[in-house]
Amino acid sequence: MNTGPARGMRDFLPEDVRRRQYVIDVVRRVYERYGFEPLETPALENIETLTGKYGEEGNQLIYKVLKRGEGEATGQADLALRYDLTVPLARVVADNRGKLPRFFKRYQIQPVWRADRPARGRFREFYQCDVDAIGSTSAVVEVEMISAVSEVLQSLGFRDFVVQLNHRGLLTAMLDAAGVEAGKHGDALVAIDKLDKIGRDGVIDDMAARGISREAAQSALDRAASDEVPAGSAPAENISAILALCENTPAKGHVKFTPRLARGLSYYTGAIMEIAVEGIGSLGGGGRYDGLIGMFSGEQIPACGFSLGLERILVVMGERNMFPEHVQAAGPDVLVTIFDEPLTAESLRLATELRAGGLRAEIYSEPLRGGKDLGKAFKYASARKTRFATVLGTSEADAQTVKIKDLVTGEQAVASRSAVAIWIKEQMKIRPTSDLQPPPSAS
Amino acid sequence: MNTGPARGMRDFLPEDVRRRQYVIDVVRRVYERYGFEPLETPALENIETLTGKYGEEGNQLIYKVLKRGEGEATGQADLALRYDLTVPLARVVADNRGKLPRFFKRYQIQPVWRADRPARGRFREFYQCDVDAIGSTSAVVEVEMISAVSEVLQSLGFRDFVVQLNHRGLLTAMLDAAGVEAGKHGDALVAIDKLDKIGRDGVIDDMAARGISREAAQSALDRAASDEVPAGSAPAENISAILALCENTPAKGHVKFTPRLARGLSYYTGAIMEIAVEGIGSLGGGGRYDGLIGMFSGEQIPACGFSLGLERILVVMGERNMFPEHVQAAGPDVLVTIFDEPLTAESLRLATELRAGGLRAEIYSEPLRGGKDLGKAFKYASARKTRFATVLGTSEADAQTVKIKDLVTGEQAVASRSAVAIWIKEQMKIRPTSDLQPPPSAS
Repeated sequence: MNTGPARGMRDFLPEDVRRRQYVIDVVRRVYERYGFEPLETPALENIETLTGKYGEEGNQLIYKVLKRGEGEATGQADLALRYDLTVPLARVVADNRGKLPRFFKRYQIQPVWRADRPARGRFREFYQCDVDAIGSTSAVVEVEMISAVSEVLQSLGFRDFVVQLNHRGLLTAMLDAAGVEAGKHGDALVAIDKLDKIGRDGVIDDMAARGISREAAQSALDRAASDEVPAGSAPAENISAILALCENTPAKGHVKFTPRLARGLSYYTGAIMEIAVEGIGSLGGGGRYDGLIGMFSGEQIPACGFSLGLERILVVMGERNMFPEHVQAAGPDVLVTIFDEPLTAESLRLATELRAGGLRAEIYSEPLRGGKDLGKAFKYASARKTRFATVLGTSEADAQTVKIKDLVTGEQAVASRSAVAIWIKEQMKIRPTSDLQPPPSAS
Repeated sequence: MNTGPARGMRDFLPEDVRRRQYVIDVVRRVYERYGFEPLETPALENIETLTGKYGEEGNQLIYKVLKRGEGEATGQADLALRYDLTVPLARVVADNRGKLPRFFKRYQIQPVWRADRPARGRFREFYQCDVDAIGSTSAVVEVEMISAVSEVLQSLGFRDFVVQLNHRGLLTAMLDAAGVEAGKHGDALVAIDKLDKIGRDGVIDDMAARGISREAAQSALDRAASDEVPAGSAPAENISAILALCENTPAKGHVKFTPRLARGLSYYTGAIMEIAVEGIGSLGGGGRYDGLIGMFSGEQIPACGFSLGLERILVVMGERNMFPEHVQAAGPDVLVTIFDEPLTAESLRLATELRAGGLRAEIYSEPLRGGKDLGKAFKYASARKTRFATVLGTSEADAQTVKIKDLVTGEQAVASRSAVAIWIKEQMKIRPTSDLQPPPSAS
């Protein structure tokens, strides 16, 4: 029997979940501080909600779910799994007009599913952390997005990130000026997007293969190499305003006009942005999409959003050892042993007291046969990275005391029952586990 | 275009998410304090992992997902959506033998999907909060489960709950003694389980219709009405031990031997438990299942678990007004307005300062045209339950001050830039929003 997860899916053991939870908590805390509010949508959507929203290729990657009852016979699918968080948002906004505030700023942290071919770092179930602002065309919205995302990365310990910034209107103007005909703009952008990967000559070959003249291709690349925001047009003014305003936020020094930034999705209508980290690639991106919500509501509603890729962030943080100590070793604080069977009730009372005292206390549920299995229990605690273990024999029960063993230093102490929790918490403060070397006997 | 969620599914707007998050955080905190560790499994499982685990009826309620690519033509399904959290746990334990601690105590809080007919309080996507302990047959495990679940309910504000306790072995003995033949035990338990709903006579009729003699039925019900744990057998000793040990934990006074408690699932092998709240019904249940993991690992591994139903808990807490104030009104603390377009940068700086000062600050992204739209912005803030709004005009910018309006009291104050965040936080402490009446002008 195959006991592994399905292909492209992952089980998250406790250490994995703690790391994920840590990053999600940071993201959530920062977004809340910016006034964004949480939204959650169902994993399953009506199939018509999703089809036709992600292009030809996207359509094929949507997981489709058999219709209840008769579907099993006919093979008919009526539901589909969430493919991103933007289309469900657009549906919810259309469905709740009047109920939502005029400016609806929401964040959403949920998994999405894509039937993509699995590869290193590419999974079929993965989390997105999205933040979107609905209802305003002001450049302040883009600035707030960039600022919030920058603060998330800084809070996680990233220093070397750049928020690349461009505008769909500037890309169009650049390609026009270079002599790329309008019908080839999409092809040209796909090619230019690969500049970092395949180099200048590669891009020119690629564009030529797509029927764009080498002269136009070269001209486009020359223009895309400039760092100056071209003057005069409305898109240029928008980008200049965003760049200038970002200097008043935590994004200061991190935003860079990047004329070759294209972004794949076709629904963007204004500013586009992407987070680049040296040697890593993209940790997320976004932009303004003033048309998408209208597909659901019939009414044109401006919107701008940003999506952080949780999985990529986790991989980089793991490689760079960026998780704080308390996330790495987050097992129970203390193991409560049962010295002998008749002492079970007293040991449960001790565990209850320790938990009431704010400690994470695990009970070793098998009695230690009058201490014969103490070594077994200590070994179990050490393997779980639990630093303290309590021993409560008949004499301790009579005296209302407890023996406490520090499994890292090997030290032992006796404390009165009313003082155990305080004593352990003091020890954790005086000598945090990260400062300690294991005792010779344990190595 | 249909903009609603799919049938039986729900969108969670910000207030809903906050309530859900609050309960989930409490559950997680308590379980962690007991030494349970988090596990997460994928939403999609190989279809063979799930089929045959939930009985005939369960099989039909599993959502099946079309195979990537060719599935769309053939209608073949190779994946299925998580139906509960116990079967995936059994698979993970079998898949990670050696990697997991000898006693693996995990909690898991994730959605499951069932293609059930939607009804009041019954949804097709719903969360379960499971806690399971693998590897020990000790009664201490059951005690810890009951204790943890009781502490979760107490932390949420429940006082009137009873953890009903019974044992599969006692049910068998009771039915044997009543003269119900072994082949009819399953039928008898289904009928007895309905006692609260259809009454004594209803149950006897039901059992008679299932081919059980009225004499045996009456005898079984008489025995099920007793509050005494029958003496002598191993199951009876197990139940007596659990009851006695629970008195040393937060479950004290909440556990009740309930001989008619049957629990539907067939995989239980020992103690079974269910949380009953007067007038509400069950908030969750569990029991010992020493055989299930063996279905995946081939090796018999003892286990015991408990599942809390998040959705039911949320409904009851909503009806009884049990959510604390800070969950109800959790919008931003302060709305930062932009008095006029040229003051945008200065207003962004103010927002950055307030956030650094620990406040949740939202920017009203449209400039107020020299104050003409101040009323609009205040109205927006009030609708969002945001108590404070800042106004920063040219004179304030020059003097490095800010005007702050308390939208609940109507009061206005001027503070120096360096003191704004502190001032607002003080106000929130001196007069919490819950103590305040809206000013006459706002009513």
